[in-house]
Amino acid sequence: MTKFVYLFEEGNQSMRALLGGKGANLAEMTNLDLPVPPGFTITTEACNAYYEMGEQISDEISDEIRHSLKALQDHTGKALGNPEKPLVVSVRSGARASMPGMMDTVLNLGFNDRVVEGMAKLTHNRRFAFDAYRRFIMMFADVVMEIDKNEFESIMDQVKKARGVTKDTELNAKDLEEVTHKSLARYAEIKGEPFPQDPTNQLMAAIEAVFKSWNNPRAQYYRRMNNIPQSWGTAVNVQEMVYGNMGEKSASGVAFSRNPAVGDNHIYGEYLPNAQGEDVVAGVRTPVALDEMKQWLPEVYDQFCDMAKRLEQHYGDMQDLEFTIEEGQLFLLQTRNGKRTAQAAIKVAVDMVEEGLVTKDRALMQINPASLDTLLHPRFNREELAKAEPICKGLPASPGAASGQIVFSAKDASRQVLNGKKVILVRKETSPEDIEGMHIAEGILTARGGMTSHAAVVARGMGKCCITGCSDLLIDEKAKTMTVKGVVYKEGDVLSLDSSTGLVYDREIHTVPAEIAGDFETVMNWAKETSKMNVRANADNPADVQKALDLGAGGVGLTRTEHMFFEKDRIFQFRRMILAKTKEERLEALDKIRPIQQGDFEGIFRALKGLPATIRLLDPPLHEFLPKKDQEITDLAGSMGLDTEEVKKVIESLQESNPMLGMRGCRLAVVFPEIAEMQTAAIIRAAINVKKEGIDVYPEIMVPLICTVKELSFLRKVISNVADKLIEESGIDMHYNVGTMIEIPRAALTADEIAPVADFFSYGTNDLTQMGFGLSRDDAGPVLDTYYQRGIFENDPTAILDQKGIGRLVKISSKEAREVKPEIHLGICGEHGGEPSSVKFLHGLNFDYVSCSPFRVPIAILSAAQAQIENPRDYLSSDLEHFFGREK
Amino acid sequence: MTKFVYLFEEGNQSMRALLGGKGANLAEMTNLDLPVPPGFTITTEACNAYYEMGEQISDEISDEIRHSLKALQDHTGKALGNPEKPLVVSVRSGARASMPGMMDTVLNLGFNDRVVEGMAKLTHNRRFAFDAYRRFIMMFADVVMEIDKNEFESIMDQVKKARGVTKDTELNAKDLEEVTHKSLARYAEIKGEPFPQDPTNQLMAAIEAVFKSWNNPRAQYYRRMNNIPQSWGTAVNVQEMVYGNMGEKSASGVAFSRNPAVGDNHIYGEYLPNAQGEDVVAGVRTPVALDEMKQWLPEVYDQFCDMAKRLEQHYGDMQDLEFTIEEGQLFLLQTRNGKRTAQAAIKVAVDMVEEGLVTKDRALMQINPASLDTLLHPRFNREELAKAEPICKGLPASPGAASGQIVFSAKDASRQVLNGKKVILVRKETSPEDIEGMHIAEGILTARGGMTSHAAVVARGMGKCCITGCSDLLIDEKAKTMTVKGVVYKEGDVLSLDSSTGLVYDREIHTVPAEIAGDFETVMNWAKETSKMNVRANADNPADVQKALDLGAGGVGLTRTEHMFFEKDRIFQFRRMILAKTKEERLEALDKIRPIQQGDFEGIFRALKGLPATIRLLDPPLHEFLPKKDQEITDLAGSMGLDTEEVKKVIESLQESNPMLGMRGCRLAVVFPEIAEMQTAAIIRAAINVKKEGIDVYPEIMVPLICTVKELSFLRKVISNVADKLIEESGIDMHYNVGTMIEIPRAALTADEIAPVADFFSYGTNDLTQMGFGLSRDDAGPVLDTYYQRGIFENDPTAILDQKGIGRLVKISSKEAREVKPEIHLGICGEHGGEPSSVKFLHGLNFDYVSCSPFRVPIAILSAAQAQIENPRDYLSSDLEHFFGREK
Repeated sequence: MTKFVYLFEEGNQSMRALLGGKGANLAEMTNLDLPVPPGFTITTEACNAYYEMGEQISDEISDEIRHSLKALQDHTGKALGNPEKPLVVSVRSGARASMPGMMDTVLNLGFNDRVVEGMAKLTHNRRFAFDAYRRFIMMFADVVMEIDKNEFESIMDQVKKARGVTKDTELNAKDLEEVTHKSLARYAEIKGEPFPQDPTNQLMAAIEAVFKSWNNPRAQYYRRMNNIPQSWGTAVNVQEMVYGNMGEKSASGVAFSRNPAVGDNHIYGEYLPNAQGEDVVAGVRTPVALDEMKQWLPEVYDQFCDMAKRLEQHYGDMQDLEFTIEEGQLFLLQTRNGKRTAQAAIKVAVDMVEEGLVTKDRALMQINPASLDTLLHPRFNREELAKAEPICKGLPASPGAASGQIVFSAKDASRQVLNGKKVILVRKETSPEDIEGMHIAEGILTARGGMTSHAAVVARGMGKCCITGCSDLLIDEKAKTMTVKGVVYKEGDVLSLDSSTGLVYDREIHTVPAEIAGDFETVMNWAKETSKMNVRANADNPADVQKALDLGAGGVGLTRTEHMFFEKDRIFQFRRMILAKTKEERLEALDKIRPIQQGDFEGIFRALKGLPATIRLLDPPLHEFLPKKDQEITDLAGSMGLDTEEVKKVIESLQESNPMLGMRGCRLAVVFPEIAEMQTAAIIRAAINVKKEGIDVYPEIMVPLICTVKELSFLRKVISNVADKLIEESGIDMHYNVGTMIEIPRAALTADEIAPVADFFSYGTNDLTQMGFGLSRDDAGPVLDTYYQRGIFENDPTAILDQKGIGRLVKISSKEAREVKPEIHLGICGEHGGEPSSVKFLHGLNFDYVSCSPFRVPIAILSAAQAQIENPRDYLSSDLEHFFGREK
Repeated sequence: MTKFVYLFEEGNQSMRALLGGKGANLAEMTNLDLPVPPGFTITTEACNAYYEMGEQISDEISDEIRHSLKALQDHTGKALGNPEKPLVVSVRSGARASMPGMMDTVLNLGFNDRVVEGMAKLTHNRRFAFDAYRRFIMMFADVVMEIDKNEFESIMDQVKKARGVTKDTELNAKDLEEVTHKSLARYAEIKGEPFPQDPTNQLMAAIEAVFKSWNNPRAQYYRRMNNIPQSWGTAVNVQEMVYGNMGEKSASGVAFSRNPAVGDNHIYGEYLPNAQGEDVVAGVRTPVALDEMKQWLPEVYDQFCDMAKRLEQHYGDMQDLEFTIEEGQLFLLQTRNGKRTAQAAIKVAVDMVEEGLVTKDRALMQINPASLDTLLHPRFNREELAKAEPICKGLPASPGAASGQIVFSAKDASRQVLNGKKVILVRKETSPEDIEGMHIAEGILTARGGMTSHAAVVARGMGKCCITGCSDLLIDEKAKTMTVKGVVYKEGDVLSLDSSTGLVYDREIHTVPAEIAGDFETVMNWAKETSKMNVRANADNPADVQKALDLGAGGVGLTRTEHMFFEKDRIFQFRRMILAKTKEERLEALDKIRPIQQGDFEGIFRALKGLPATIRLLDPPLHEFLPKKDQEITDLAGSMGLDTEEVKKVIESLQESNPMLGMRGCRLAVVFPEIAEMQTAAIIRAAINVKKEGIDVYPEIMVPLICTVKELSFLRKVISNVADKLIEESGIDMHYNVGTMIEIPRAALTADEIAPVADFFSYGTNDLTQMGFGLSRDDAGPVLDTYYQRGIFENDPTAILDQKGIGRLVKISSKEAREVKPEIHLGICGEHGGEPSSVKFLHGLNFDYVSCSPFRVPIAILSAAQAQIENPRDYLSSDLEHFFGREK
């Protein structure tokens, strides 16, 4: 029989999949004899069973919950609903992967009209008892019954107004009793039935609400963004409440064993005296720095620091802790590996290796490859920054540099971004509803909240520039203005945020590229030494190539020759070539184009200094290069001495019903071999010239979009006829490769026929995904929206490689290609080449390299290293052997 | 070492792949001691080697040819170029499959200035010798040197004019000597060198020319039309010449052992006295019927009839023979299984079984499934025909009935057909250049030529209506007119051809559908008994269903529900549904549509009488249903009380970059489940109503275009929610299936996940091919043209299933589906379902059925039977078991 509920003492940290992260760590801490309030965890499997039964908790699971509740009551000597010995619990979600703030929580569960009186007597604190009860009513109504929180918050506001006070803390016991009674009445009025008094019913309803919250839209969105499978489900933790709001010697707080923003090895945290934990996270009041506890409660402080270090050593990673001090007594409510900025992750990893706490492999595994992205974002130009005058200062919650126009809501953010604007989201404090707006904003600025507020945690998770707790900021959301020291800023005004310092500027400041140095460089060197796969970059010009090499690329995996033609002075010849009516005219235009391409290639080869460059022959449909508007067409016709109507006819004749499935890729070269001949000549002449300068060159000519080996055989002959002749004439000893993209399903399915004719395969997983799913990226929008909603797709397969379907094509074809040609070189140049899970998948298939955009190169390098650590392979990329002299 | 050349006595009929059809049969006849002039065959492998070496005959092969030539000289006691004992040979192509007239031939090879004098002396026939030499000069110049034939024909014309004669036969020896000398001079003038006098050089050049002709455009086109692989190559036959033009007791002819047009068991042929074989085939003179030989040369006639019967028995099939009578002596130059009309094939098959000559299986294998198409073409309405007056009569060369506008050239045929016209191609005689025009014409009418002329042979091969030798016809190709008994007809006038009688009418006559009866029925019954796979039809309305059942279908494999909506009175509601802005509006429109669909389905179920019907949910992109033109949009908006601009906006919003890869298929139903609900209700209510009438029903609901099992799981739930409720309410005991199309590559690759949720898979190989090749059928035109030219594609993969690539997806997925769900029902409803080679492939994968258009049902049934004969399988389609009570 499956066990669906575990007491904390029955679990441990290895049971993360079953108990969720929070549950497994509460169990682990319990067994380490740390001060954890007792409780139990309902498993993720129970959540899945709930959905499988059509959103119902089975009798079997209900029975187990009651059984564990009894054990908890026996353990504490308290009982739910017993006014003499009242048990009060929290009910919290906890998935395998941390999803902060995405799901629901109910606190103070167990209160009812009788318990509140008992609690008042027991604690000699009537104010506390009614505060807890009225909080519970509001939370239960909101989370379980889906009643708008404002219904109850307005009662608080009325009472405060009546008393002439502004802060919650200024209300006394009697006031809160009044709030409680009014809340109960309001509840009954809305629901048509009284507030539930049976604590067991309260509990079951709260558990179900947490299960349900697994599928709320923001949880779905978060999962999609973080590639968390829906099938994981969430666990539910039921735990005895402890109270940080019990009085003067009480507090609630959160802390990191090291600084999560920059990585310093110094315990770092915040607490709110006399408050519940939710108040800290919500950012309603700005909390006190943990260091101040040294003066306030020195023993508790020392005890906490000891525990934090002990846990850090135990887990071998930086910890993120939640704690409560109830009347001077310390309780730990949560520990987990702390989320951190990429900057912090790198520093922590290097420090921990130096401290001898973890191995290099372990340290590399601690860094989230995707987060490195943020380190590669540009920083402000130092000179401009020096000249600028900050208008105010907040907390450096998540580092970065961002300029943009002010917006005051997530909705406005969406609207402006759709209009092509860059925005800074300015909020009093953020809430889970803001998550999409935060995602699309350049940066986030809040007036309230600390380093661990919602805004800070979420922004760090996204690697987004964020400044919190900027108390000089007065925001009027309705009027869409913010006032700083008397100056009013309105929507659309420009702000710049330097979140490494927390300074805010009211002008645009330009940025400069990031560089890899210091600890970052150390980590990237470890990763390169560990990885068995090369990482190349997609780069179309010498500047991009240089950027890619600076970021650690080991060559170029894709140069798109067509991008070279969109520049204004070049497109004219290209259009002449397209509009040519005879082969002679076309050859004449191509003759003009060739030297331009050759110049580009020379620059690329020079920058590469002997590293390989894979250059793709012309790929997109020709009509993409032609003007669309009447005036442009007339101008073009005029400048070419052609008739406008004639040009229009050519443009029309190039229109296709499904251009994605039409005349493009190698089909262009098969129809007009002279284009491939020109491009080959440009590549080979460039290579010869650069080689003559004493620089090694390694050109690879790539044929796109083949569906049958015969296309490649035909074009390989076209290419080698030109190339061999030029090389022979030059008298230079030079090698070049000819290979193909595998981006059409049929090509993948006939790899055994194609491999003998190809020196290399480069997988174009963008097209392979579009054709394999029968879904064009340009048209997928409306489909994806519904598919996410209905749980049919969990993420966008064009962003994360679908390993089951498209990955199978990659697997079949790479295996069969290697069978007939063991030395064939395998790589990928689709956008999946810089996505960590896809990189790991391709590592497993013994790929030689992945190629991605320059800014994703460090991500791919770290992913490849992690893949080797998780799943070691023997096969060493021949790139690494050949170009970097690594030995097998 | 590979042997590249075989003497006739070294081969036999089983070596067809190596020696080609002609070569293998010449060898077989030689070994049967039939009177075959000696010779040798250069193999198809030599042809392939020629192409692999970059169009060069290797030294090894040249040596073998010389060696065999020596053996031939020893055997005959003659020698090439020896004026005393001159060897003269023919050089003919001969592929594995017959490709009549598509490749090149050189006759009379061996003549030169000295041989012609020797031959004149030897034969005592100076006229014959110079006629043969001048023919050789012209043919060699044309075929080997690519000099226009007219250069030499005009010399003949000049000489005839000078002599004041009109016929070639009226020229005497001296005249022909003059023609010969002038031809040699003209040749030297054009080529800048004298005509080659060395017969061995002549021979090698002619062999190379025949190899080259394997790749001429008309041979490529013919191969594509007949699905003959390029890799087969052609053999070359070098054979001693015999002369049907040696004098009064000489003749050349062709014959069939039975009538190739209707199948009568009576030897059937034609000959030209004192002529070479090419004259018969070319149709220059209208030949004499074979029966007349009985009077002329009774012994030769009897000898020939005996040989023909003997060969028919030897090969177990009707024979097509070429013969020459040289001075009263009979020679056989070719035998092969005779091409015949479908009508003849059926009669021959039934007769041969009755005669005990072949088994039923053997008889079924003799019929080309694709040819059955022609039997299903409509015939003229008998009453209209009776009233019409024929304008002239020709030979019934290929049966059928056709009306169309007159065109006088293949080019004009193309032009008019592109303009949507139906045409009758009228020619003096056809030549291989006309082949495309013949293909697209409704029918062919020629003034000259017999039943075995080019026009007749090719038309029969195509199953095209054709009347030849209509001698009342005077054609002026330049003026584009034809005159019949003084009446002038011009391009665009309408003709009707009844080629079962040979009568031509100058008005349109309407047609009536064909039916399956007599021998055709017998053959179809044999095929049905033999086949282990069911054949269903694609039919969208009761009339089509009835047609399909009449033609032998065992159910409906595809009903496209959208076709029901293009009718004018229905589209309005459908458009309302599309333009609905809320779910309520959409439901209202759907409510109006439901009863209409239900009525259609009731008709279909009634016609099927308990046979299964697979009904596909709405599939095409919605914008296909909306008007395109401004006026139509305005009208639509007006009739719906909507604003025109608003409707335009909706239409615009539905436009997609790649509609093939966009919002269509099940994606529509996932986004708007109410459409699937309406369609399910219509299907199930219809089924219930018809079942209440006492007629069995077997509905299968098919979900199109899935790419992941989750789509199907979601929609299966939507469907069964509606269906189960309706069935329960009706109190009727009724079963329905829910299945899916496999038409997206990813679906095929994840069949193991999908199969558990599907009762059946129906392969949509149209889409699977388009996505698998990355080539949309709408845009493929310009690509295919070049791809055929360059030999990259040999045929259109949307017409003939690509077994290697797309077939592999079908194979993988059907295998994996059966592994997880052995009882899953497998079928295909793409257009490949009626294509013989594809049907055979699917038989091999244990498919339950193929579904095709009604007119292709008999083709599919015969193909399935042939598949079972060629490659017997144990698996009996559960369709045949379930609906036809066949036992395993």
